[in-house]
Amino acid sequence: MNSDIKKNRMTDVTLTILKSDGTPLANQQVTVEQTNHDFLFGTAAFDLVPLTGGDYIGEEKDRAEQRAEKITALFNAATLPFYWARFEPQRGKPITEKVKNAARWCFDHNMVTKGHPLCWHTLTADWLLEMSNAEILQAQIDRIRRDVSDFRGLIDMWDVINEAVIMPVFDKYDNGITRICKEYGRINTIRTMFDIARETNPTATLLINDFDVSPAYDILVEGCLEAGIKFDVIGIQSHMHQGWWGVEKTLKVLENFERFKLPIHFTETTLVSGHLMPPEIVDLNDYQVTDWPTTPEGEERQTEQTIQHYKTLFAHPLVEGITWWDSSDGGWLNAPAGLIRTDGSVKPAYEELMKLIKGEWWVTPIKLMTNDNGEIQFSGFFGQYKLSFGGKQTLVAITKGKGTVISVEV
Amino acid sequence: MNSDIKKNRMTDVTLTILKSDGTPLANQQVTVEQTNHDFLFGTAAFDLVPLTGGDYIGEEKDRAEQRAEKITALFNAATLPFYWARFEPQRGKPITEKVKNAARWCFDHNMVTKGHPLCWHTLTADWLLEMSNAEILQAQIDRIRRDVSDFRGLIDMWDVINEAVIMPVFDKYDNGITRICKEYGRINTIRTMFDIARETNPTATLLINDFDVSPAYDILVEGCLEAGIKFDVIGIQSHMHQGWWGVEKTLKVLENFERFKLPIHFTETTLVSGHLMPPEIVDLNDYQVTDWPTTPEGEERQTEQTIQHYKTLFAHPLVEGITWWDSSDGGWLNAPAGLIRTDGSVKPAYEELMKLIKGEWWVTPIKLMTNDNGEIQFSGFFGQYKLSFGGKQTLVAITKGKGTVISVEV
Repeated sequence: MNSDIKKNRMTDVTLTILKSDGTPLANQQVTVEQTNHDFLFGTAAFDLVPLTGGDYIGEEKDRAEQRAEKITALFNAATLPFYWARFEPQRGKPITEKVKNAARWCFDHNMVTKGHPLCWHTLTADWLLEMSNAEILQAQIDRIRRDVSDFRGLIDMWDVINEAVIMPVFDKYDNGITRICKEYGRINTIRTMFDIARETNPTATLLINDFDVSPAYDILVEGCLEAGIKFDVIGIQSHMHQGWWGVEKTLKVLENFERFKLPIHFTETTLVSGHLMPPEIVDLNDYQVTDWPTTPEGEERQTEQTIQHYKTLFAHPLVEGITWWDSSDGGWLNAPAGLIRTDGSVKPAYEELMKLIKGEWWVTPIKLMTNDNGEIQFSGFFGQYKLSFGGKQTLVAITKGKGTVISVEV
Repeated sequence: MNSDIKKNRMTDVTLTILKSDGTPLANQQVTVEQTNHDFLFGTAAFDLVPLTGGDYIGEEKDRAEQRAEKITALFNAATLPFYWARFEPQRGKPITEKVKNAARWCFDHNMVTKGHPLCWHTLTADWLLEMSNAEILQAQIDRIRRDVSDFRGLIDMWDVINEAVIMPVFDKYDNGITRICKEYGRINTIRTMFDIARETNPTATLLINDFDVSPAYDILVEGCLEAGIKFDVIGIQSHMHQGWWGVEKTLKVLENFERFKLPIHFTETTLVSGHLMPPEIVDLNDYQVTDWPTTPEGEERQTEQTIQHYKTLFAHPLVEGITWWDSSDGGWLNAPAGLIRTDGSVKPAYEELMKLIKGEWWVTPIKLMTNDNGEIQFSGFFGQYKLSFGGKQTLVAITKGKGTVISVEV
């Protein structure tokens, strides 16, 4: 295993197991088994909204349920959709309850949820166009306040603002959010959105997120931090429809953000298993194809690159999450970007990721004997573990920075 | 004339001329003649250092003097060189007196001077490489304090920091300034350099300057302003060795900075009169040619584009200066970038600029009669004017925002 993964993701643990009377559980066999990662292995899980909303019936429903099972088997985090145009197509009629169903489903399936995004110029509400800039700003503020509040406890992680680098100069079509960002400036807009989100849910994890990995983005982050804005996580998109970045570029991008010493999420990771999108396409949305099949060669390439990409990111001390985008083929851009084919079968990249996330990077059940002091020692990944002994079970969290000498009372 | 030039650069003036006893100089013929522009029509004038330093002799000196005459006939501003590697090749032995001679010469020839640059990763002192980052930072601070202080009164305008967008990620070769910018961050580095320059000469005009005209630069400016750094002028380079930007791109670049409502200088404007540099060159310094001749077709293209470029910028309300780079052929990159050929003759672009700066945009002597109240009225460009009547002369400044009803006591 990569020594950086060992260094940054694992720890040697000494667990002292005490009985309820405070005396050590000495010389007892204990089975230790990992049940979750602290690291967020996530996926865009928009499909859960129609599934949990009862929109699918018959075979379509069966297939969606099978996809959902495959998602929960591999991932521990889900990104749920809050695109304003779809979330509140008619002003005042948001689909809050539908998305809550999906969030509850994730909660029940031990998946951490993130809402994406609260403020973005793409897929924003058309009805903003009728308003003055002051009214648009107020509507955007109200929207954040309402949704972050409505979902508090179900969704406590948000992509607060998406693609702020291009936001005020985006010129493909007129939209309300570009208008206000142009008038108030990027940093002021970001500050307002973070202030409102933070005030509404002070314990939420709030991200800035962007596809731009040129110096413009890290300069924007620096400017925001200097202006006193608090980011919990820096989100970096990596839609690689035009080809894998490779390890060198990935590390270079990470290097640009390292000086902030903030957690980093790779929020939107795409590696296609079909032909690559031509390099001359600048805005990925411009590539419109009716058929973009997954191919055996493409799947082989996707598998290799996925392994490399995850290994590179999992080894980096600041990265705390990777979200795959989309889980199944035929989502955004009709791309073969999934780990699951349209027929519901899994691709080799899925299987290889499973071997990493629940294999090489996972503590499978081990049997240990406590010593006279009730201690066991093992080496494990940061995450949650189940201890079983004498018919009893207990959970214990092994968390970075929390110390590795833990007492468990049973 | 372009209506924006009329609107942004000219004003209708009412001058009341009073005699020393306070009564109006009634019904008297007055000649009004412009003697300078407020707008800075500048040029890189590095050649003045060897010229005024006595480095040229014989014919070489004659040619340099002729070039200098042509410069002063056209321009009212000069950029003087402070590249650290050349200004202080040996630590503690700066060529202060030599550059002072050039600055005094400019002062005597009514040219406003600017020092370029105080902090830059290119052409910085090699001897920084031996130091720790804390020592480099201190040396850079000391350098700014020394030079801004030494030249106070002679040079009161500075490119404080040059190319900060690329500064911390510049990777062509190791250098002291990239090292400190990487460690302390762009905004912190900029803040420090501006703080020191401002503190040393509080009345100086201080610029940030960059060739990067992507959103990275205006985002950096926004971040600095949010962090409380005060820029007097935003400097934009426009080295167009690979072809003229055209009006559309020029206006687009300006638009990105308009929201700051700060003065803008086009600090380094190049349009070559020979073949264009190939588009695949990314760092202009990589294009090394022994021969890059000026050509008749090239001079024609240069002329047309120069006229368009100056008209576009002179019409924009925020632009307050344009600096041509270099004045004569054979300077940086050995490019035919001059308005003067290597044989000392002027190119058509020089003549056309003269027709604009001292022609279309200039009030040539006009004879006016004062009325009973001693008033004359005329329309003029912001700048300095000479009034002549009855053997007497006086100067009057017509400055933006200072009102256009002026009393002159004679």
